[in-house]
Amino acid sequence: MSGYVSEAVIRRLPAYNRHLHELEQEGVLQISSQELGERMQLTPSQIRQDINSFGGEGRQGFGYQVHELREHIRKIMGLTQRHRMVIIGAGRIGNAIANYDGFDHEGFTTVAMFDNDPEKWKQNGKIPVYDVSRMAERLPELEPDIAVLALPASAAQEMLNRLYEMGIRAVWNFTPVDLQYARDVAVVNVHMSDSLQILSYLMKHQND
Amino acid sequence: MSGYVSEAVIRRLPAYNRHLHELEQEGVLQISSQELGERMQLTPSQIRQDINSFGGEGRQGFGYQVHELREHIRKIMGLTQRHRMVIIGAGRIGNAIANYDGFDHEGFTTVAMFDNDPEKWKQNGKIPVYDVSRMAERLPELEPDIAVLALPASAAQEMLNRLYEMGIRAVWNFTPVDLQYARDVAVVNVHMSDSLQILSYLMKHQND
Repeated sequence: MSGYVSEAVIRRLPAYNRHLHELEQEGVLQISSQELGERMQLTPSQIRQDINSFGGEGRQGFGYQVHELREHIRKIMGLTQRHRMVIIGAGRIGNAIANYDGFDHEGFTTVAMFDNDPEKWKQNGKIPVYDVSRMAERLPELEPDIAVLALPASAAQEMLNRLYEMGIRAVWNFTPVDLQYARDVAVVNVHMSDSLQILSYLMKHQND
Repeated sequence: MSGYVSEAVIRRLPAYNRHLHELEQEGVLQISSQELGERMQLTPSQIRQDINSFGGEGRQGFGYQVHELREHIRKIMGLTQRHRMVIIGAGRIGNAIANYDGFDHEGFTTVAMFDNDPEKWKQNGKIPVYDVSRMAERLPELEPDIAVLALPASAAQEMLNRLYEMGIRAVWNFTPVDLQYARDVAVVNVHMSDSLQILSYLMKHQND
């Protein structure tokens, strides 16, 4: 049905999801590529090309059905099913992720955290923090499909290898490490320092 | 000296900085585009093209001087000068950023936080948390050049407008909002939910 979805379009999918959700909340039932383009700061032809590439349907002169298009996008993004996350590392980054309500709301539930510091082996709100050395025993009952890497950089690659052996095939990586992984693993990096350095670059070259 | 630096190259600059730093720490003095490419998972010709575009110099048969090249990159990224950040919002995300030692180490010092909740107006380690309604008085003495948006999404755009009036021209945005801003403002977004949704997409399409 849908053709090849480029990386640039994949990167824009969450923005489509977000804007269409806002439109739903505003009670808007349908929208033209012109209007959607204005909201998303894209040209109408880019909007039509994007939506066509991932198999969304519009009607000449009527535009897109907001709810229908959003459901289509949620489906191709795998957001109509719930995901279970374990967070490796119960430091500040790990805790910020665990305690952020928004992810649960969007279907990403943190089911447990793991840390090597015994002082952290307790309940963090609704989320238990376990000994990382007992991860292999715990994972089968937790049934996670995503592991979040929020541990020191020096331990990241070895942890990814261990998680792979335990069957984890999706990793959300907060460590500043370019991980090496098998082709059947999905990895998305949140390199916070990189993003801050890019801001520094843009500041320096604002007036170029 | 340097030619046009594409957005793709700008996005890779932090990785160059990181890998060259690792090489320095390993005591490596010079490196060929071949070896650097293997580390960075780029082709040697891509490496040469990237470095050439931002004005780095290599010598045929000798490759690149590690320290010299890293200093050049740090300079064009504006990382040889220190930056002063204020964080708007002293919730979990704001605190995680404030307490992360790495940024300070890289020259990005958090000088203050602002929040509208009186219970948060106290010292957070070395960082004071002030009343957000008194921001206009406080900013001149704090001399920040970066504002970090870690407040509720609904307040983000108005806050950016206020910060602009107060002279802030660089924003690190953690809210899930596509901000509207003047051309002389540098904005980098860390849309955490977007990144998680992209992971979900990749998981669903791993076997396509």
